[in-house]
Amino acid sequence: MGIIVQKYGGTSVADIDHIRNVAKRITKTYDQGYNVVVVISAMAGVTDELIDMAMQVTDSPEKRELDVLLATGEQTTAALLAMTLKAMGYPAMSLLGHQAEVLTDCSFGNARILDIGAGRIKELVDERNIVVVAGFQGSDQNGNITTLGRGGSDTTAVAIAAVLKADSCEIYTDVDGIYTADPNICEKARKIDTISYDEMLNMASLGAKVLQIRSVGFAKMHDVPVHVRSSFSEEEGTMVMNVDCGMESLMVSAVTHEKDQARITLKKVHDQPGIAAKIFTPVSEAGIVVDMIVQNTSAEGFTDLTFTVPKESFKTALDIQRRVAEKIGAEDVLGDKNIAKVSVVGVGMRNHSGVASKMFTVLAQENINIMMISTSEIRISCIIEEKYTELAVRILHTAFGLDKE
Amino acid sequence: MGIIVQKYGGTSVADIDHIRNVAKRITKTYDQGYNVVVVISAMAGVTDELIDMAMQVTDSPEKRELDVLLATGEQTTAALLAMTLKAMGYPAMSLLGHQAEVLTDCSFGNARILDIGAGRIKELVDERNIVVVAGFQGSDQNGNITTLGRGGSDTTAVAIAAVLKADSCEIYTDVDGIYTADPNICEKARKIDTISYDEMLNMASLGAKVLQIRSVGFAKMHDVPVHVRSSFSEEEGTMVMNVDCGMESLMVSAVTHEKDQARITLKKVHDQPGIAAKIFTPVSEAGIVVDMIVQNTSAEGFTDLTFTVPKESFKTALDIQRRVAEKIGAEDVLGDKNIAKVSVVGVGMRNHSGVASKMFTVLAQENINIMMISTSEIRISCIIEEKYTELAVRILHTAFGLDKE
Repeated sequence: MGIIVQKYGGTSVADIDHIRNVAKRITKTYDQGYNVVVVISAMAGVTDELIDMAMQVTDSPEKRELDVLLATGEQTTAALLAMTLKAMGYPAMSLLGHQAEVLTDCSFGNARILDIGAGRIKELVDERNIVVVAGFQGSDQNGNITTLGRGGSDTTAVAIAAVLKADSCEIYTDVDGIYTADPNICEKARKIDTISYDEMLNMASLGAKVLQIRSVGFAKMHDVPVHVRSSFSEEEGTMVMNVDCGMESLMVSAVTHEKDQARITLKKVHDQPGIAAKIFTPVSEAGIVVDMIVQNTSAEGFTDLTFTVPKESFKTALDIQRRVAEKIGAEDVLGDKNIAKVSVVGVGMRNHSGVASKMFTVLAQENINIMMISTSEIRISCIIEEKYTELAVRILHTAFGLDKE
Repeated sequence: MGIIVQKYGGTSVADIDHIRNVAKRITKTYDQGYNVVVVISAMAGVTDELIDMAMQVTDSPEKRELDVLLATGEQTTAALLAMTLKAMGYPAMSLLGHQAEVLTDCSFGNARILDIGAGRIKELVDERNIVVVAGFQGSDQNGNITTLGRGGSDTTAVAIAAVLKADSCEIYTDVDGIYTADPNICEKARKIDTISYDEMLNMASLGAKVLQIRSVGFAKMHDVPVHVRSSFSEEEGTMVMNVDCGMESLMVSAVTHEKDQARITLKKVHDQPGIAAKIFTPVSEAGIVVDMIVQNTSAEGFTDLTFTVPKESFKTALDIQRRVAEKIGAEDVLGDKNIAKVSVVGVGMRNHSGVASKMFTVLAQENINIMMISTSEIRISCIIEEKYTELAVRILHTAFGLDKE
């Protein structure tokens, strides 16, 4: 008998009515003869409320205890959903992270799944129970409760699907799939039927709102097909899976944008070995994730070095770099929060040349200046002035033939 | 190094400010050189909110899942308190029921503690950690989460104190101890300094609001001294312990009253073997707890049978008895919700005669009619008309010499 893993996000279980709705969906799949394992998030807003509560205690709550606190969110919905299914006459049982044997490392607040025993889940599923697993949580080897960080429920779902060798992993959310661009700013954006893991991994900004990026890596590694779809409609969503890229595939699958980055430039840095380490070590020690790094060609032994950080870390990073600049004798430190990253993504790029030059040309035609460029095998990203973001997305979407009829 | 177990009730941890207050108390004891294990309830009102939530799902929520839901209440406060202690610079760690190895039977919603491993607690305490245990919860042999029923946190605290052979178990609440009568209706009531386990067990009504009666039985069995006191003052409260009853001890230690009972009478029941079983089996099958039972002397092969049930079960019990009466050919079923139980309690009764007759005389002097009587070795209870409750408590309090100067 096939197994389907279904994951429901916070907006899908926002209150008892929503939970009832979710229960109906689950039983529909169950009645079709599938075994169903459900992974559930906290009710929308609850995790933030719990964090607020902790922040009332202290600015920097002990991470171990914060995880104990946050884990109550998923525990609550897991119990309520199992209760609802039982009340509807279906055999159901909730399992918390440790009961579902979700073993993680001990990085509280951002733990990684090491293993899922799944013995208990399998046992329950074999008896035709609907198993409701509290997502986002696990326990470490000492039995401490851990959480997987934001979006961790997606990872729980994919990991369980992998261990159970499930037929598919359905991620239910409040949007009906992955789009070729953000429909809010590009009205010609189309829903994508099928997308590869790699493309998904390269379009964090479009994807992350829908499917946690860490879970995609996991799905790719274990070849778990992930179906992203809406819990508010019956329509098929987007299938994230191993796609063979045929000759006819589009060069570009989607245009994405991000506005949550800020740029920092160190002017006139001595271009000598070890200088990059001096600049980036203190940033990473402060827990700040650097995204793009660009270093100009050296001139007369000096170079300009520019990188981007999340906007929320901008001030901290800037302060750090001012101290660094003094130490290494850089001429100046500049910062700019009014930037955006626009990217085109597509496995088709592998078989098509000229994507980059086309992108630069299209942007130039609208007099949009490119401040930084970074590329991967299947993605090209440009940093531009923030005010041009929407325009850039629309013209690239059209230029790469993504507009719907 | 001595160990003190402290239990804080829902009103003591009602919000972050209260939790901070509790943390100060804990650290004060810790700084005196004691090892401290804290048992914590859910924030006042939270358990009721969670039950309301479950009731929105269904009138009779699955008990296993209800326990998973309710357990989040104590989990939340345990995490917040441990976080607060950490933020104050003290070594602290929360443990949930299963982490503290609180093994229970599998009676969801009303589980009994079978054993407390306490290995983890001891280990942490030996390293001078303040251990914060989520009360009210445990897990059964299959790892299912269970709750101990209302007031279960008291039982958790006493059980842990027993296992750790703690110096004392302090139960912090919103009143400053046990009184000789309810101070709200008897202004001459005095706080009791020391009371025996047996007396405490016999004054459920005065005590249960303060100290869960099941925990007292446990404390008696393991000889754990329990100090009931207020978390809002520094005053000593009431010590519940093994008291040797000397010659000079008072006949009566306290006067208690309960208004939550109702009375049901079956008139003219055939007085024959097996009749009581026919009457009480359906009541107990409906989960209704019968308190007092009185059967009149049989006359001409018939008897009247009267018993009391909690007011909330009155209607159900009455309906059941109407069906029973038809089946067994009883003449009539009468019900009365306007009753109260007034009791005098004291280990001194063992050494003094005449307590009962004195009680009846005092009530008769005020023309208070006694409807039912029941006695234990150290308690005499009378059912009277509800409207006389306060008067009865006051005159008995005075008559037995309990009034404060």
